Amino acid sequence: MENLDRLALHSITTKPWDLEIAVRMYREAGVRGISIWREAYEHRGAEKAKKLVQSVGLHVVSLVRGGFFVHPEPDERRLRIEKNIELIREASVLGAPHIVLVCGAHRNVHIDEARQQVEEGIASIVPYAEKEGVRLAIEPLHPMYAGDRSVINTLSEALDLCDVLRSTYLGVAVDVYHVWWDPALMGQIARAGASSRLFAFHVCDWKTPLDDMLEDRGLMGEGCIDIPRIRAAIDRAGFKGMIEVEIFSRRYWALDQNVWLSKIIEAYRTYV
Amino acid sequence: MENLDRLALHSITTKPWDLEIAVRMYREAGVRGISIWREAYEHRGAEKAKKLVQSVGLHVVSLVRGGFFVHPEPDERRLRIEKNIELIREASVLGAPHIVLVCGAHRNVHIDEARQQVEEGIASIVPYAEKEGVRLAIEPLHPMYAGDRSVINTLSEALDLCDVLRSTYLGVAVDVYHVWWDPALMGQIARAGASSRLFAFHVCDWKTPLDDMLEDRGLMGEGCIDIPRIRAAIDRAGFKGMIEVEIFSRRYWALDQNVWLSKIIEAYRTYV
Repeated sequence: MENLDRLALHSITTKPWDLEIAVRMYREAGVRGISIWREAYEHRGAEKAKKLVQSVGLHVVSLVRGGFFVHPEPDERRLRIEKNIELIREASVLGAPHIVLVCGAHRNVHIDEARQQVEEGIASIVPYAEKEGVRLAIEPLHPMYAGDRSVINTLSEALDLCDVLRSTYLGVAVDVYHVWWDPALMGQIARAGASSRLFAFHVCDWKTPLDDMLEDRGLMGEGCIDIPRIRAAIDRAGFKGMIEVEIFSRRYWALDQNVWLSKIIEAYRTYV
Repeated sequence: MENLDRLALHSITTKPWDLEIAVRMYREAGVRGISIWREAYEHRGAEKAKKLVQSVGLHVVSLVRGGFFVHPEPDERRLRIEKNIELIREASVLGAPHIVLVCGAHRNVHIDEARQQVEEGIASIVPYAEKEGVRLAIEPLHPMYAGDRSVINTLSEALDLCDVLRSTYLGVAVDVYHVWWDPALMGQIARAGASSRLFAFHVCDWKTPLDDMLEDRGLMGEGCIDIPRIRAAIDRAGFKGMIEVEIFSRRYWALDQNVWLSKIIEAYRTYV
C-alpha cells in the first residue's frame, strides 16, 4: 500500500469544487500537493490563490496550463506568447516550480508548420522562464489530439524539442494517459531521467471504450494502463517529485466530490 | 485532377448497399477496384461474391479484415488463428492479393504480452499465406485503438514485425487516418517501399473534433490530413497499387448512397 506522501491532485480533477473548498478537502484527506489550473485561480488572482494553498500547507506542484502556441495568424501567436509570459509570472507568484505546456494544434495549420510554431513559441518564452526561475514541462499529448490540441505527441518528440532548445528550465511532463501505448516509452523515460528533463508524472487510466475523447478518463485501476510498470520506470529514472492525479471525467464530476476524493485516494493506494 | 484509374472503395464505405448493388454502382461511377469486407460476402460465400465482382469487371484489391490475434485464453487465440487461415483460403477464392490484418488488442491482456501474441499469431498464419499465394498487410492502427483494437500503432512497429517474421508475403497497409500524426511517417513510408513491404494505401480524413472514435471518419478534404503529401511519399516509395477509400461514417451512411458515392469521387479527384 502506497502512503500519501507523494500524492498531488490537479484542481480540475475535482472541478465542481472551488479552490477554497478543494484545498481544505485535499488536506483533510491527506493529499500533499496540488497542481493549480488557471481556471481555478484566475477570478481571484494568483496572490490570493497562493495564500489559500499556503493556509492549509499544500505543496504547489505545477501551474496548468500554458502553451497553445499554434495559430494561423501571427498576431494571435504573439498574443499567446504574451499570455505564456504572464503565466510564468503567475507561476512565480503561486510558487509553482513549473508550468505544464500543452503545445497546441490547429485544424488550419499543417502539422509540420504547427510543430515549427511550437518550437518558436517555446523558444520565445524560455528566457522569461529562466529569469523567473520557473521551469517549463512539455506534456506530449496522445496522438488523438494532434488535430486540435497538441502536435507534440510522443515523449521522444518532447525530448527532442528540449534537446534543440537546450535550456535546463525545459523538461517534460509524463502523463500515462498520453504515452502508455508507445512502444518506445520505457527508453524515453530513461532518456528523460538521464538528461534531467523529467519534471512531472501524471496518473489516471485509459478506459475501453472511451465515451468521450476528452472528458472520460478512467480512475487508476479501471482501465488497461499498467501504471505500476510505468511508475517503476519513472522511479528508476530518478524522479522524486509528487505523483499527480489528473482526471477529466463528466461521470466523476457528477458524483459527490467527497466520495470521488475518497475513491481517488483508494485507487492511488492500490494501483499506483 | 486525378483520373479514376486507381480508385478503389472498401465495401464498408457504402455499408447500406448490398455487395450486388455496390459493385454495379461502383462500376457505373467509374470506380476500378473494391476491397471486400467479410461482412459483405459471408452470407453468400466467397465464390458467389467473386462472380459478382467479376461480372462488372472490378479489381479485387483486398479482403478486409483478418487479425484480431489478442485474447487472454489460449483456446480462443487458436480459434482466431484458424479463422485467419480460413480467410486466407477465402482471399484466394475471391482473387484478393492480400488480406488486411487488424492485429488486435484486449483490455485484459497487457500491451507487451498482446504485442507478443500478435507476433505469434502472424507467424502461425504466414505459412498458409505463402502456400495460397495471398499476402498479409499489417495495418498499424491509430494509438487511440491500442486498448481494444490493435496494439500495432505505428508504421515503424508494423515494419519491425515484418523484419522479424521475414516472409515476403508480409507487408503493410498505410491508412492516412492512423498514421498522419506520426513525425516518423515519411521515413517509414520510404522504408516500406525500399523493403517491398508497401502493399496498400487507404485514404479518408481526420475531422476535428471527432464525434465518434470509430464511425466518424471524414471525407478527403474535410479534415486536417495533408493527403497529397502522404500520397507523394507513397508514390516516391514505388507504390503502384490502387488507392482505397475506406470511410466509416454514420453521417455518410445516412445519406442516399448514390449521392455519397458521387461526393467520394469528387473528393478523390480533388484531394488525393
